[in-house]
Amino acid sequence: MSLSARNRLSGTVQRVETSGLMAEVVVELDGGQTVTAIITSGSADRLGLEAGSEVDAVVKATEVMIDAH
Amino acid sequence: MSLSARNRLSGTVQRVETSGLMAEVVVELDGGQTVTAIITSGSADRLGLEAGSEVDAVVKATEVMIDAH
Amino acid sequence: MSLSARNRLSGTVQRVETSGLMAEVVVELDGGQTVTAIITSGSADRLGLEAGSEVDAVVKATEVMIDAH
Amino acid sequence: MSLSARNRLSGTVQRVETSGLMAEVVVELDGGQTVTAIITSGSADRLGLEAGSEVDAVVKATEVMIDAH
Amino acid sequence: MSLSARNRLSGTVQRVETSGLMAEVVVELDGGQTVTAIITSGSADRLGLEAGSEVDAVVKATEVMIDAH
Amino acid sequence: MSLSARNRLSGTVQRVETSGLMAEVVVELDGGQTVTAIITSGSADRLGLEAGSEVDAVVKATEVMIDAH
Repeated sequence: MSLSARNRLSGTVQRVETSGLMAEVVVELDGGQTVTAIITSGSADRLGLEAGSEVDAVVKATEVMIDAH
Repeated sequence: MSLSARNRLSGTVQRVETSGLMAEVVVELDGGQTVTAIITSGSADRLGLEAGSEVDAVVKATEVMIDAH
Repeated sequence: MSLSARNRLSGTVQRVETSGLMAEVVVELDGGQTVTAIITSGSADRLGLEAGSEVDAVVKATEVMIDAH
Repeated sequence: MSLSARNRLSGTVQRVETSGLMAEVVVELDGGQTVTAIITSGSADRLGLEAGSEVDAVVKATEVMIDAH
Repeated sequence: MSLSARNRLSGTVQRVETSGLMAEVVVELDGGQTVTAIITSGSADRLGLEAGSEVDAVVKATEVMIDAH
Repeated sequence: MSLSARNRLSGTVQRVETSGLMAEVVVELDGGQTVTAIITSGSADRLGLEAGSEVDAVVKATEVMIDAH
C-alpha cells in the first residue's frame, strides 16, 4: 500500500447506483458494518464496480470524526 | 442519528496520542478492522477520549474513495 | 454535543433541492449569514429536511479555510 | 468572489494559536457564532492573521453536514 | 492570494459538464497534467466557466494524499 | 490505477518536514508547479518520503475548487 491515506477497509460492493455525474457505492465491510461512498460516475465506470466486487473503502485520517455518544 | 453523514462505524478506542493542536485516535471497529482519525486536541479533551472508550468513527460519504485493486 | 467536529452553526433551512443522488440544502444562520451544504438525497430524506427545519450546519475544522482579503 | 466555494462567512479573528506545522484560528462571525479553522502555520504567517483581523471563513459545500437534532 | 489554501494550480478549462446540482470541470494545467473538479452547478454558472477559461484549481493541503508507488 | 480518486499528479518530493503527528510534503509537479500535502507523520515514515522521491499527489475531485480570477 503505497498511498498515504491511513484508512483502508476491505469489503464487498453491495450496490452501485449511478445518476448523472455521481455514483453511490455501498460496501459491506468484512466485519459486517457498511460504508457508503460518493464518487464520480466516471470512476465507477473506469473501475467496473458492481455488486460483488471486492474493494477497499479508503479514507484520509483528517476526514474522520469521532462521536463519543 | 440526526447527522447527515452517512457513515458511522462503531468501535472501541485503542489509543489516543496528542501532540500540539492535533490528536490521533485509533479505533478498532467491531468487525476487527482499524480506523485512524486526526482530530483537534481540543475535541479529544472535550470528549474525554481514552483507550477503551466506545465511539463511532463518522465519515461523510463524499470523503470515501474506492480502491478496486 | 458528542461529535468531535468543532463547528456547529445553528440556523433554519431556507430551501432543499434534490436532484438524483445529491441534495443542496441552504441554511440561514441565526446571525443572518447563509450556508449551503451538499449532502446525499438519502440523508435529506432520512432527516426530513424542508424549509423551516431548525438545524445545525456542521463542519470539521480541517475543512475550513481563511480568506484575509 | 471568483472562487467556486459556496460558503464565505465574514467575521473577526479572535485567536490564533500556532504549534508546529498547524495553526488553529478562531473566528467570531458577524452574527455572533464562532468558527474554528485548522490551517497550516505557513498560511497563518503568510496571511498575517492575528486577533482583530477581518476575515472570511471559507468552506466548500460538499464539506458541510446537516444535523437535524 | 489572500486565501489560506496552499495549492493553486494554474491552467485552462478543457471541458465543463453539468448535470443536476453538480458540475465536473476538467482543467489542463500549464505543465500539461490534468485536474478534475466536482463543484456545484450554481458555482459553475456564477463563474461562467467554459472551455478556454483561464482558472486556478485550488486545493487545501490537508486534502492532498501522497502515493509513493 | 485502481483508486477512484480522479486526480493523480506526478512529481518529485522537494522537501518533507515532520512535526509531531503531522508532516508537510512539498512536491514539484513534472510541469513545474508545486503541491503541498499535509499527511500524518506515520504515513510519511511508512512511505519513506524524502527529497528526490518520485511520487503522485492524489486528490479526490470533490476536494478541488475553481478560482476563475
